[in-house]
Amino acid sequence: MAYLKEMNKITYEGPKSTNPLAFKFYNPDEKVGGKTMEEILRFGVAYWHTFTEDLTDPFGAGTAIRPWDTYKGMDLAKARVEAAFEFFEKLNVPYFCFHDVDIAPEGDTLAESNRNLDTIVAMIKEYMKDSKTKLLWNTVNNFTHPRFVHGAGSSNNADVFAYAAAKVKKGLEIGKELGAENYVFWGGREGYETLLNTDMKLELDNLGRFFHMAVDYAKEIAFEAQFLIEPKPKEPTSHQYDFDVASGYAFLQNYDLQDHFKFNIEANHATLAGHTFEHELHYARIHNMLGSVDANQGHPLLGWDTDEFPTDLYSTTLAMYEILKNGGLGRGGLNFDAKVRRGSFVPEDLFHAHIAGMDSFAVGLKVAQRLIDDKVLENVVEDRYSSYKEGIGRDIVEGKADFHKLEEHALGLKEIRNESGKLERIKAIINQYLLTAFAE
Amino acid sequence: MAYLKEMNKITYEGPKSTNPLAFKFYNPDEKVGGKTMEEILRFGVAYWHTFTEDLTDPFGAGTAIRPWDTYKGMDLAKARVEAAFEFFEKLNVPYFCFHDVDIAPEGDTLAESNRNLDTIVAMIKEYMKDSKTKLLWNTVNNFTHPRFVHGAGSSNNADVFAYAAAKVKKGLEIGKELGAENYVFWGGREGYETLLNTDMKLELDNLGRFFHMAVDYAKEIAFEAQFLIEPKPKEPTSHQYDFDVASGYAFLQNYDLQDHFKFNIEANHATLAGHTFEHELHYARIHNMLGSVDANQGHPLLGWDTDEFPTDLYSTTLAMYEILKNGGLGRGGLNFDAKVRRGSFVPEDLFHAHIAGMDSFAVGLKVAQRLIDDKVLENVVEDRYSSYKEGIGRDIVEGKADFHKLEEHALGLKEIRNESGKLERIKAIINQYLLTAFAE
Amino acid sequence: MAYLKEMNKITYEGPKSTNPLAFKFYNPDEKVGGKTMEEILRFGVAYWHTFTEDLTDPFGAGTAIRPWDTYKGMDLAKARVEAAFEFFEKLNVPYFCFHDVDIAPEGDTLAESNRNLDTIVAMIKEYMKDSKTKLLWNTVNNFTHPRFVHGAGSSNNADVFAYAAAKVKKGLEIGKELGAENYVFWGGREGYETLLNTDMKLELDNLGRFFHMAVDYAKEIAFEAQFLIEPKPKEPTSHQYDFDVASGYAFLQNYDLQDHFKFNIEANHATLAGHTFEHELHYARIHNMLGSVDANQGHPLLGWDTDEFPTDLYSTTLAMYEILKNGGLGRGGLNFDAKVRRGSFVPEDLFHAHIAGMDSFAVGLKVAQRLIDDKVLENVVEDRYSSYKEGIGRDIVEGKADFHKLEEHALGLKEIRNESGKLERIKAIINQYLLTAFAE
Amino acid sequence: MAYLKEMNKITYEGPKSTNPLAFKFYNPDEKVGGKTMEEILRFGVAYWHTFTEDLTDPFGAGTAIRPWDTYKGMDLAKARVEAAFEFFEKLNVPYFCFHDVDIAPEGDTLAESNRNLDTIVAMIKEYMKDSKTKLLWNTVNNFTHPRFVHGAGSSNNADVFAYAAAKVKKGLEIGKELGAENYVFWGGREGYETLLNTDMKLELDNLGRFFHMAVDYAKEIAFEAQFLIEPKPKEPTSHQYDFDVASGYAFLQNYDLQDHFKFNIEANHATLAGHTFEHELHYARIHNMLGSVDANQGHPLLGWDTDEFPTDLYSTTLAMYEILKNGGLGRGGLNFDAKVRRGSFVPEDLFHAHIAGMDSFAVGLKVAQRLIDDKVLENVVEDRYSSYKEGIGRDIVEGKADFHKLEEHALGLKEIRNESGKLERIKAIINQYLLTAFAE
Repeated sequence: MAYLKEMNKITYEGPKSTNPLAFKFYNPDEKVGGKTMEEILRFGVAYWHTFTEDLTDPFGAGTAIRPWDTYKGMDLAKARVEAAFEFFEKLNVPYFCFHDVDIAPEGDTLAESNRNLDTIVAMIKEYMKDSKTKLLWNTVNNFTHPRFVHGAGSSNNADVFAYAAAKVKKGLEIGKELGAENYVFWGGREGYETLLNTDMKLELDNLGRFFHMAVDYAKEIAFEAQFLIEPKPKEPTSHQYDFDVASGYAFLQNYDLQDHFKFNIEANHATLAGHTFEHELHYARIHNMLGSVDANQGHPLLGWDTDEFPTDLYSTTLAMYEILKNGGLGRGGLNFDAKVRRGSFVPEDLFHAHIAGMDSFAVGLKVAQRLIDDKVLENVVEDRYSSYKEGIGRDIVEGKADFHKLEEHALGLKEIRNESGKLERIKAIINQYLLTAFAE
Repeated sequence: MAYLKEMNKITYEGPKSTNPLAFKFYNPDEKVGGKTMEEILRFGVAYWHTFTEDLTDPFGAGTAIRPWDTYKGMDLAKARVEAAFEFFEKLNVPYFCFHDVDIAPEGDTLAESNRNLDTIVAMIKEYMKDSKTKLLWNTVNNFTHPRFVHGAGSSNNADVFAYAAAKVKKGLEIGKELGAENYVFWGGREGYETLLNTDMKLELDNLGRFFHMAVDYAKEIAFEAQFLIEPKPKEPTSHQYDFDVASGYAFLQNYDLQDHFKFNIEANHATLAGHTFEHELHYARIHNMLGSVDANQGHPLLGWDTDEFPTDLYSTTLAMYEILKNGGLGRGGLNFDAKVRRGSFVPEDLFHAHIAGMDSFAVGLKVAQRLIDDKVLENVVEDRYSSYKEGIGRDIVEGKADFHKLEEHALGLKEIRNESGKLERIKAIINQYLLTAFAE
Repeated sequence: MAYLKEMNKITYEGPKSTNPLAFKFYNPDEKVGGKTMEEILRFGVAYWHTFTEDLTDPFGAGTAIRPWDTYKGMDLAKARVEAAFEFFEKLNVPYFCFHDVDIAPEGDTLAESNRNLDTIVAMIKEYMKDSKTKLLWNTVNNFTHPRFVHGAGSSNNADVFAYAAAKVKKGLEIGKELGAENYVFWGGREGYETLLNTDMKLELDNLGRFFHMAVDYAKEIAFEAQFLIEPKPKEPTSHQYDFDVASGYAFLQNYDLQDHFKFNIEANHATLAGHTFEHELHYARIHNMLGSVDANQGHPLLGWDTDEFPTDLYSTTLAMYEILKNGGLGRGGLNFDAKVRRGSFVPEDLFHAHIAGMDSFAVGLKVAQRLIDDKVLENVVEDRYSSYKEGIGRDIVEGKADFHKLEEHALGLKEIRNESGKLERIKAIINQYLLTAFAE
Repeated sequence: MAYLKEMNKITYEGPKSTNPLAFKFYNPDEKVGGKTMEEILRFGVAYWHTFTEDLTDPFGAGTAIRPWDTYKGMDLAKARVEAAFEFFEKLNVPYFCFHDVDIAPEGDTLAESNRNLDTIVAMIKEYMKDSKTKLLWNTVNNFTHPRFVHGAGSSNNADVFAYAAAKVKKGLEIGKELGAENYVFWGGREGYETLLNTDMKLELDNLGRFFHMAVDYAKEIAFEAQFLIEPKPKEPTSHQYDFDVASGYAFLQNYDLQDHFKFNIEANHATLAGHTFEHELHYARIHNMLGSVDANQGHPLLGWDTDEFPTDLYSTTLAMYEILKNGGLGRGGLNFDAKVRRGSFVPEDLFHAHIAGMDSFAVGLKVAQRLIDDKVLENVVEDRYSSYKEGIGRDIVEGKADFHKLEEHALGLKEIRNESGKLERIKAIINQYLLTAFAE
């Protein structure tokens, strides 16, 4: 049955289209730098925000009007699968992502929850046969249920650790069953509310053990997804252990896990941690740890995770710049971990929001590719660091310098001459690229 | 003599120009909505950031290379005037702004400071005769000198209050002499470091008295400039009394000053106060208190006043939207209270930075005008609030409703139907307008 | 029936008691500065956080274990009343506060909601006859229900405005019925998500009309409670109109409402707005607008309303200092708008949390009273501002100075001498007072 | 000669002393947990904030009145040494710390700067012979001079890299000469203003090389100080590479430097990074990376480094708790990287401020030791994590569990029972400990 029957398939109509339900910038078949937009951008729909979310906020009840909400329990879960594949097709999107509890209701026991999952996973598998839409990643929700109040893999309660592990085990099996290209770990409760009652050392050690067991089990079942850690600094905890990419990287190195994981980087999590989105992407990229992206944006003046659909073209441009410099996202993609505003509660808004996000990243891609084609920033960088190509600079880079040699060099220097960093000029150029990208 | 002799006059060359020292979007003679860009935008150069600032930061000495810095004292002050008018002409900018200490060095006594000012003011007046560039506003610096450590008009020391008043008196006289269109009060030290040693009531009362005296003296000398208060929440104080426009408006009403002042709104001050730039403009506009603008931008992740040149086109668009809806800025203008980055230390960067800012506001103007021409946001608003055009809504607005009538209406309602706010769709439209503004 | 039967009445046992369920610092009958602690502190229990709240957070389901949760609907509402009065008695607290929806479930229609309220209000009135605990204030919840998605008194939908008014009408009637000493307005949805679709002028005008109607109706029914506005800068909205006390004061003056309202100041709302708690209290106090207090605290590193129980003794001391300088809170009180952490989910935690808060304010009271008795800060202030007691300073304060006179004075000054503000010394004294308060 | 002759030596007079120039809580000879306060706290005076700082802020000129400021150049440098040792003796402080440029003026060439340093270092060495005060650590200032505008070890200019290296070489030699117990690296310019012109990979690689060369040179000259990295998230840069301890730890591991460095943790840097001070100490401690402390505090509502003297007793208590759990600071200490407020400009304020800080840490020490003696938090933690002492929990910790075993365990669980985290109760206990610490 059709839940979104008044909607047509969204197609590309170009920048001047006045049809709100059309792509103006995202043209899946258009080639940019040798690949199609669809191949590069690898958009994913987040099951939870699109099919499960009711738009509750801390001071307000849900407002979302969803045609499938006439059902309950497993019937609702099935209706959501139907609606989801209808949505994927109409949006023409190549990927989706989910947590276990998004797709099937928890039962009274773990066994019942697993049976519910089996039913829905089978149904999804069936739908996937007739669909172009694949599973970018799955994960399990080890944070919503009250049992996770004090953590999951970092819980003070060993029963909870075991329960969380069992859920991840099932999650890995589901991922394998559905051909997930990645598997994500977001530690929503892996942190603390207060240090006063927390044994951080034991919790981190246990998290290390937890991840090693997950690696082992994936190997055992030959599930070849890329494992991804998703950093977030805080919320719901006061302090989350995977605060940002650097914290996560320190952890992975310390527990010898760095070869098994990459990062799933969310824009809004970056800004909550005091970083720009592009900083987190860049840091991950140069450490060869950039895995996938949760494409959304925060509100710069609000201190919580707003998970807005991405529309800031500066952010999408600089993100796509990092992604292109990374040689693309590999098995990763751009998952819209974004929800419509509580005031945007009709089903049509789900389309508007995704179109806004997809168009924004398409713009970002085109502008970033032009910046790369013209070597705009590469030339700036090459020029700025040219002193490391010869003389004492080359010695430094080649490991041929020590403090004696450097002091000798320094003692011989007259006034040191630096060059302007020209930030204002560079920003003006980016604006020029942005404004003329669709002017041809 | 020429300080910037290697620079040519900046002219408009259009969006695709590859000449870095040309306007790509700002075309002073181009008409937008019936007036020229120059008439609408009324750009001003900030004397302090452009001719006096050495680019010190709290952890670093000045880096700025300025050809006029070979001079000292009054000779330096004179060289800056020469350089300034050379810069104004090359940038083709209609206005400038200054504090007293920007243009002339303080002497050992107030009398000597005033004599220094007289010399330089006469010189400026002479230069203005041959220049198109006029004085948008002047002010006095009552915050840098150690005497203002505990405030100026809100100092605990009556001598300091008197000294500050004498400086403002001179400032008003200078404004009149040079035909300033506005006079600005930024209370850099009018606030507190700690409440523990502060008599806020006395300080506010004294500020009220100070402003009344200023109003009276301007009237006495027939100086008809618009008086402007410039809010800022903090820095250098822990808490500044003019925290934001609303705080300033509360103060003005409380001291019966609201008819004598409007606001000079700075983008970076808005964001430090937890507001968007456009919020502060909008709030001032609907209270008929929008006077002038300090055009800059902050860094959303940094907690201090970065005073960057404005390049964010979302911000310039929404700012220009408010300004156009205000019917323009009247006597006010867009003063670049912005400094080049410490790493952008060569004179040429002053041109790049102003070009970036002027082009960005020109883009904002054109996009905003198109949004208004097409009634994009007006239609959204008119539609959303249509319930106040008839029935109970009209009764409310016309003052014909009370709680009895409203309860009666509410008791008769079936389910209330709200409409989606469609924020994602609106943001997509703004992107579309931005990207196609220069596509014709 | 008893819901908290394992708990005894909480009594004062002194600073060294090891009984966790006893007051160590709050001794209701102890006199401080001539009145008892109970008379000065006027503590109130927040019905919503204590009896209704399930400790949901944006990423987690409710964890609270509450003995009364075995009931549903009106039976649950009744059970809560029973539990509440049992709690009030055991905690020995003189006041409580509620929103309409805390005490009775909303019905399918406004009429049914009102009938539910009538039933529970009658029950509460009956319980109050045998209880010392009185109603500090009541209010209505015009923010949780989806109908308020776009605001209540500032909704774009006139039906919603009417519905909100009808609820406030009922709220005023309930307040009168139960002898409420104050009536609070917190505008949880009175703000905007985005300026792009908002008519702020109409919304503010409508809010002004709404408040005038409320004033008129209270007068009509002779309900003599103090009306209170509770500022909050954001959350759930992106921007709330009553951002802080100053914003609220600007609004009240602009709509000629300043004689009918005071402010209910919440600590956590203050810090979210970029102010200290004591700043908001102080600002309200010196404008004669300090009405009541929502006693809680935020987490300085988290950007949302954490509503923690107040335990920071610096904050309680400085708050009590302002309250004592105000001559007390009059009809207001200290309402614990605070919730136990999600990890503190057993009923006993409700007692621990209130004890922690009450003890903390008792400490604050004693330290503040000693600071006042010893004129610690008064002397600092009197000394610092002594220059306004004579000479030019007195002229300024008495309105006998103008810019001519002040300039003359300034021209005659030698070097101006300021005194140190001695903040470090003052902070050390406050620590000394804190640490020795209970040492006798 | 005496610069501070009106001051007497500061001695301990106990909590009720009314002498402002006495310690009330810091009693250097008092034993706490087996060692004297002086041995545990190892206080250090920061040369720069106390003898060099003029209290400039970004909007104001220096206000500091310092008796030694009648001198200039090398004479001033010598006067400062005299004043410093007079201050150390009067404050009775065991350590001091400095940057190269604090003690001697930079010359026109590196060679001249080094000669200036040699002169002053010889003088300091002479003074140290007759003084109890030792050198906790030294460092070099590679951030103030314009040459470092684009970084030092991470500069894009190889000449600057060499110059910075030569300065560190000299710094290591000075450290050895004066018996420094540690050597600190704060990378004030080791970060970026914008990613747009930055080669982060090369910059990080170069920093890694720089640190290895420093390690090698210290070994070569047998300088056995502990090397310390001091994290800070931003300011003056937009983003500093050593953002926080975790970022620094990721870097050290990645460049195989983790065995050669520990961290110097500053309270205000922690809060600017979104962490509590105690979080950073704790994280460093459990990774065996806690080296030393920059004891100060920030203002929770201000977004820049305020470097206030520490007076918050919660912060000092929790900091000392971490330090005691670490078995003390080893070769590290508590350096007051704190400056008096700009309004506290007389020499006496330097004493008040240090007394306030030293007393505050003495209180923190005593409260923390009592918490440890009574096993207050240890018992909470032991109890909370007891499930890892037996059964499946022990299997997890001992590495005997895998996902199969954990799933089996989870499938067999009935409802999982968690215990309350009791945060409110714990906070009340800490208040009780604080308020009764000096009540005996």
